[in-house]
Amino acid sequence: MSSENPPSGRQVRRAGSTRLDSYVDRYAARTQGMTASEIRALFSVASRPEVVSLAGGMPNISGLPLDVVAQALHDLVSEHGTTAMQYGSGQGDPVLREQICDVMRLEGIEAHPDDVVVTVGSQQAVDLVTRIFCDPHDVVLCEAPSYVGALGVFRAYECDVVHVEMDRDGLVPSALRDAIATCRAQGRRIKFLYTIPNFHNPAGVTLSAARRAEVLEICREADVLVLEDNPYGLLGFDQEPIRALRADEPDGVIYLGSFSKTFAPGFRVGWVLAPHAVREKLVLAQESATLCPPAFSQMAVSAYLTQHDWQGQIKQFQEMYRERRDAMIDALEDMMPAASRWNVPAGGFYVWLTLPDGLDAKAMLPRAVTARVAYVPGTAFFADGFGAQSMRLSYCYPTPERIREGVRRLTGVIEDELELRATFGTVRGALDHQRGYEAPNTDLS
Amino acid sequence: MSSENPPSGRQVRRAGSTRLDSYVDRYAARTQGMTASEIRALFSVASRPEVVSLAGGMPNISGLPLDVVAQALHDLVSEHGTTAMQYGSGQGDPVLREQICDVMRLEGIEAHPDDVVVTVGSQQAVDLVTRIFCDPHDVVLCEAPSYVGALGVFRAYECDVVHVEMDRDGLVPSALRDAIATCRAQGRRIKFLYTIPNFHNPAGVTLSAARRAEVLEICREADVLVLEDNPYGLLGFDQEPIRALRADEPDGVIYLGSFSKTFAPGFRVGWVLAPHAVREKLVLAQESATLCPPAFSQMAVSAYLTQHDWQGQIKQFQEMYRERRDAMIDALEDMMPAASRWNVPAGGFYVWLTLPDGLDAKAMLPRAVTARVAYVPGTAFFADGFGAQSMRLSYCYPTPERIREGVRRLTGVIEDELELRATFGTVRGALDHQRGYEAPNTDLS
Repeated sequence: MSSENPPSGRQVRRAGSTRLDSYVDRYAARTQGMTASEIRALFSVASRPEVVSLAGGMPNISGLPLDVVAQALHDLVSEHGTTAMQYGSGQGDPVLREQICDVMRLEGIEAHPDDVVVTVGSQQAVDLVTRIFCDPHDVVLCEAPSYVGALGVFRAYECDVVHVEMDRDGLVPSALRDAIATCRAQGRRIKFLYTIPNFHNPAGVTLSAARRAEVLEICREADVLVLEDNPYGLLGFDQEPIRALRADEPDGVIYLGSFSKTFAPGFRVGWVLAPHAVREKLVLAQESATLCPPAFSQMAVSAYLTQHDWQGQIKQFQEMYRERRDAMIDALEDMMPAASRWNVPAGGFYVWLTLPDGLDAKAMLPRAVTARVAYVPGTAFFADGFGAQSMRLSYCYPTPERIREGVRRLTGVIEDELELRATFGTVRGALDHQRGYEAPNTDLS
Repeated sequence: MSSENPPSGRQVRRAGSTRLDSYVDRYAARTQGMTASEIRALFSVASRPEVVSLAGGMPNISGLPLDVVAQALHDLVSEHGTTAMQYGSGQGDPVLREQICDVMRLEGIEAHPDDVVVTVGSQQAVDLVTRIFCDPHDVVLCEAPSYVGALGVFRAYECDVVHVEMDRDGLVPSALRDAIATCRAQGRRIKFLYTIPNFHNPAGVTLSAARRAEVLEICREADVLVLEDNPYGLLGFDQEPIRALRADEPDGVIYLGSFSKTFAPGFRVGWVLAPHAVREKLVLAQESATLCPPAFSQMAVSAYLTQHDWQGQIKQFQEMYRERRDAMIDALEDMMPAASRWNVPAGGFYVWLTLPDGLDAKAMLPRAVTARVAYVPGTAFFADGFGAQSMRLSYCYPTPERIREGVRRLTGVIEDELELRATFGTVRGALDHQRGYEAPNTDLS
């Protein structure tokens, strides 16, 4: 190897260095932002059977009619196998795109299948939208807290996330207005508002009807695109589906949907509904990313929608999740120490719990796992280290009995922490972020 | 809308402009590089039944045992449905990753399943590798010509593609050495060499054994990573599988494989085998892009590999494609005008045809389609507009009879062009690129 070559990882390793990643000098700048999420680090621990995991966001699909799906896929292969197993279009299967329009109609959306792009789960939808819109240091406005998977995408594209406060009625319009004004005054380029209006992940709250109009009006006036992420919209417990933001603003809203929670995540079928010009760019981005989303997955979902009472199935899911939500809320009310606060979600998978002052959910996590209960600390849902006093609790996957047992274990851990605090003062002092300038509230109860 | 707001697309449209894309000022810089490929524009035309398409790269999967696959998927859902339809790991199914190592062993690769990352087709593998390594203006070395889908990815990540000459024995080592030296002298950062050593798409050629060692040695000395893309490796006609570059260089080669050509593309299952540290980054990138590749697709491929004689099936595919290759070569020899040149591929899907001097395959395409035959002009496979005298002919999908008919039609079009040229001089003079500085050869025969 010539001495004129720049020092390389391979040379370093050959020289006996203990450096673990010999490629570290070669990665793209964006790769610095790719780090394992707090959720991911948890998975290996939380998946042990003795741990009650209130951490994951896996839907409970044990109620699916396996016999119906098995027969549908058998017939799909027998009758249309050479199409279902072939390359498809980059935009996605036309029949499925029509069915997707039927699904969205439940939320008041009138759309044409030609404006729908099928994606590999709605995670890929967030990726593709960010890919076509965001240069490094472009601003993405996000609720505080926001979905950890979306924050990971924004970080991977080197965006600057600016959090906007929420309360029990969802995104706070005045905070949105202020955030836009502040960014503009700083000369920063806002690319879109990323929002989960229904049964928020992780906050559990839902944007009120009055605020929907106000948020749309603010974004329309400020000419800020809205990225409406709505995986849980059909999983409300108390009412008809809530009208989507997109239903009242076809031009300024890009809508993301998914079959992961209303059917099953293993096919990875999500979608984007976008204004026509944006849709064209998304198809090109999809072709570059995967050539085309899996034809088989799409035709499998399409067959399920055709051959099964999918709306009846969603009602069953709603009942199951409502029962689990009730189990969690009842357990929290029965057991949690007085100074803890939480909200009561009207749908979806998540409760946002804020601990008594002085406690730190992130610092407490190892002790919780030792006590055989897992959750996701609030910091995972902020781009800026905020959220340490809070945590996300998922009630989607464990049985009501396990949920109650999980809350019992968690209560024990919190009480131990409170006792420590009473004895030694504030625990581990990791709460500086909460006193920072512009720190949003984490109390959504 | 306040007059202080910057002029926006929406305002422009409201003012009655005919501008088609009102979002044009908001896209990321990378989105400028996303344009419809020449192949894509062709698809709508070439898919008409009266057109003989020698354009597409769709594998012919009519020989697959649909009854076996139908039963396997039925049983997969019945017996493991709640796993197969659930979220999976970002890295991919562990059982499938072991089977992938078995597949790669046929090419001399000894690898651990822990170093494999499953991707949504090997297209996504190219995307993820580029994502973690390439900043804008980083150089990617590519064969001349190269795979159009990979060029699209490199463009989407704003890389600079530097083409390296090929001949009938594949990549030319001295040209590689020169390209590296030139880039380094210019202070440009080379991120990797992207190469398709076997049955090249689109060039049809295979890197000779002697050159494999030489290419690896050059890259090792210059500390340039190799991205070995090998979707066709098991589809050779005349011999045992060719030893992969990765088999002799585990540290400096990232290997990409796919089940799209050896089984079926509709599941979109490909993979990356990478050095361990790189593999970790790829998993993070995959989680950001899709959370996880489809569990169902992976378990479907895994079941097929377990329950069917997949190696016997590949032998059948080889026979079928060899028959079609022969049909195409026979037809070319029987009909093409003397000054046309082509190579005889030893596997894969493609023949690279170079037209008589003065003819332009891109300019000729509309007349070919009128004559009901389609191909892909050579320019699609160059990042720099080169390649107009050549075209890619695919023999993978049409029957031997249709291939012969397609070549007959194509010959008629070429003869008409030659007659025009004889009458009026050089046709449509679009061949400036061929006389450019450093223009590589397109004659691979």
